[in-house]
Amino acid sequence: MLNIGLLGLGTVGTGIVQILEERKQYLENLVKQEINISKVLVKDIDKRRDIKINKEKLTTDIYEIIEDDNIDLIIEVMGGLDKPYHCIKEALNKGKDVITANKAVVAKYLEELTELAKERNKFFLYEASVGGGMPIIKPLKEQININEIQEIKGILNGTSNYILTKMTSDNLDFEDALKISQGLGYAEANPIDDIEGYDTRRKLRILSTIAFKDKIDEENISCYGISSINCDDIRNIKGMNSTVKLLGTAVVNDNKYYANVEPVILNQNSYFGKVDNANNLVSFVGDVVGELRFFGEGAGKFPTANAIVSDLIDITANTYPRNCIWENKNLNNINQLYEGKYYMRITTEKEIKDKIEGYIIDNRITENIIENKDSIAFTTKSISKKKLEKVVETFMINSQDYFIARLEV
Amino acid sequence: MLNIGLLGLGTVGTGIVQILEERKQYLENLVKQEINISKVLVKDIDKRRDIKINKEKLTTDIYEIIEDDNIDLIIEVMGGLDKPYHCIKEALNKGKDVITANKAVVAKYLEELTELAKERNKFFLYEASVGGGMPIIKPLKEQININEIQEIKGILNGTSNYILTKMTSDNLDFEDALKISQGLGYAEANPIDDIEGYDTRRKLRILSTIAFKDKIDEENISCYGISSINCDDIRNIKGMNSTVKLLGTAVVNDNKYYANVEPVILNQNSYFGKVDNANNLVSFVGDVVGELRFFGEGAGKFPTANAIVSDLIDITANTYPRNCIWENKNLNNINQLYEGKYYMRITTEKEIKDKIEGYIIDNRITENIIENKDSIAFTTKSISKKKLEKVVETFMINSQDYFIARLEV
Repeated sequence: MLNIGLLGLGTVGTGIVQILEERKQYLENLVKQEINISKVLVKDIDKRRDIKINKEKLTTDIYEIIEDDNIDLIIEVMGGLDKPYHCIKEALNKGKDVITANKAVVAKYLEELTELAKERNKFFLYEASVGGGMPIIKPLKEQININEIQEIKGILNGTSNYILTKMTSDNLDFEDALKISQGLGYAEANPIDDIEGYDTRRKLRILSTIAFKDKIDEENISCYGISSINCDDIRNIKGMNSTVKLLGTAVVNDNKYYANVEPVILNQNSYFGKVDNANNLVSFVGDVVGELRFFGEGAGKFPTANAIVSDLIDITANTYPRNCIWENKNLNNINQLYEGKYYMRITTEKEIKDKIEGYIIDNRITENIIENKDSIAFTTKSISKKKLEKVVETFMINSQDYFIARLEV
Repeated sequence: MLNIGLLGLGTVGTGIVQILEERKQYLENLVKQEINISKVLVKDIDKRRDIKINKEKLTTDIYEIIEDDNIDLIIEVMGGLDKPYHCIKEALNKGKDVITANKAVVAKYLEELTELAKERNKFFLYEASVGGGMPIIKPLKEQININEIQEIKGILNGTSNYILTKMTSDNLDFEDALKISQGLGYAEANPIDDIEGYDTRRKLRILSTIAFKDKIDEENISCYGISSINCDDIRNIKGMNSTVKLLGTAVVNDNKYYANVEPVILNQNSYFGKVDNANNLVSFVGDVVGELRFFGEGAGKFPTANAIVSDLIDITANTYPRNCIWENKNLNNINQLYEGKYYMRITTEKEIKDKIEGYIIDNRITENIIENKDSIAFTTKSISKKKLEKVVETFMINSQDYFIARLEV
């Protein structure tokens, strides 16, 4: 009998219970043992829930689960950072396999927890931490056994993609689109991780570390979000027959790599440009297999629970792909050298806009001035982003009053 | 030591030898044993080859490989049908694992060879038979452990997709596009399997059988190809702001399914519409995970060899997903009941065209007549395809003188 300790009974935790219940017989035939959720960590035992679950299984005491020698495997879907990290560590130390959906924990402690799991000869799996229901961690780990991955990029955050989709299709302003996405349960009450790109950065950190077989730190991934985008930007971008997406990109060449998260203006009919609502798309390029792309629902109760149950099956059947140890190539970050073409919009007083226009022309930054009315918007030649940051500094523009996106059209 | 018997040293076979050579150390570390291609079946031992290989390993006698008790695993990339089938069967009977890229064999003998492998407790894997380098067989087998698959569709044949891409982008006629694709090595000297849809049908037979956990026979998949498409069709389709792709589609509902291979007219900016050249795209919808899409190069030396080496790693590490036995649901085929909107073009004498125009109006088949000049082309209301076959019969139209595509716009 496989005894599971489930940490968290929110949306995803409930989905896991439902899948394991509904497909109980099939899954037990498959893994040739009984599957039993023996204990569930909750905040409030008496809370009304949508599913039937034996109250005796519920506990508010994490140690009742971690110290229970009958529990073989922990599924962590409680959210947060420090507490789940300690729980996962303790569980591995106690000889339990661990599955988590927690991208914050994985992004911060990937190497440590992977190493610990290896020492204890246990699994530490986290398919649900990136791409929701889309299988991406496992396929990537499989492909790196045959391929050198040269590039990985993705639309990795459902919330920000939903907001950009709504702003574009329904001409909504940012705040209204955000509110709708919160109403649908996509965005958190505090959506900063989604809209500032931090969530995308965590996922890119995880994917690029696996892809490049070297630790790619979050601090080495430059990060711009979408919180300052407005209707003028959407109108300007549409005027370029384009669309805008929050993309995470990491590219390696020789021993150098760059990695960034930023809004990117794309042809509206390109593959990435066509990914709408809360969907995710990840593409990577291997030297043997060429480009592979994976598309799926980036979040949601059942897709996320599906990814966790996939990991559970692999652990129980012992079918998870093996990998050689990370090669620790000590790749050099060259973000500082990266140059691209950009779109920039600044909203400020008329006088300053005119000065900015002079400045960007004098400094040979601009390729095309799109407008100088309500705001000034322009596209650049291929430059370092630092030159745009210099504009902002020079004219003391508030972070909410400008928007920068890379041009990939 | 893992001893491999390689059957065939053509393009894909050569690619396998190269990958195993170049990544020898990594792969041997990974699977914790030496990997040795011990014998290779070829047609001509003295043929000049692009790779260095010890001539003593080459043989023209299949039994020298199959009867060799030191050989643990067979990779079949020789092509054909009867001979590779017998080789695979014999190899499994002799207790060897088998990997094949041969979609014809897999389509015809999937159940028998799967069953035989199971009896012998050996692997019979065929990732390379569908989608080239794109992982699709394994992800699908993983998802069916959690999901009921409701629909699967794909652009599954690189050659026909390349031809349609060239006809559309370069305004080539069919014969010229076919010649270019043959020059690039995509199409066989006899391209009938590609252009008549038979190759797509085989792959759909394989995927839908796995997806629906029931044997979906080729004879239950209706099949139309692209061999009669001409420049008029491309022009008409472009006039509808659309594009045309050869799609395999299988949909199940309750205990009923329909499955077909046919040209489909799609919005040119849709996901399937955007897949160009020899690329493949497969989408399937599960009740838990939602829609997943997989994109990759549909053919080619290294992508195909990549898929085979993936299977090899899974066999050696014993990490291939387990599945419960097919459920043999005895699904009912309802292809006959399927109704859709269609585009049809018929090229014939003026007199007959006018009679056809009268016929399709009288029989309330048509929704819109696109042209009645060089040829007659029209779109239909939602009808059974049989009504269009009736038109062809009634006016005794030669199969090369008409083209039918389903409308999905």
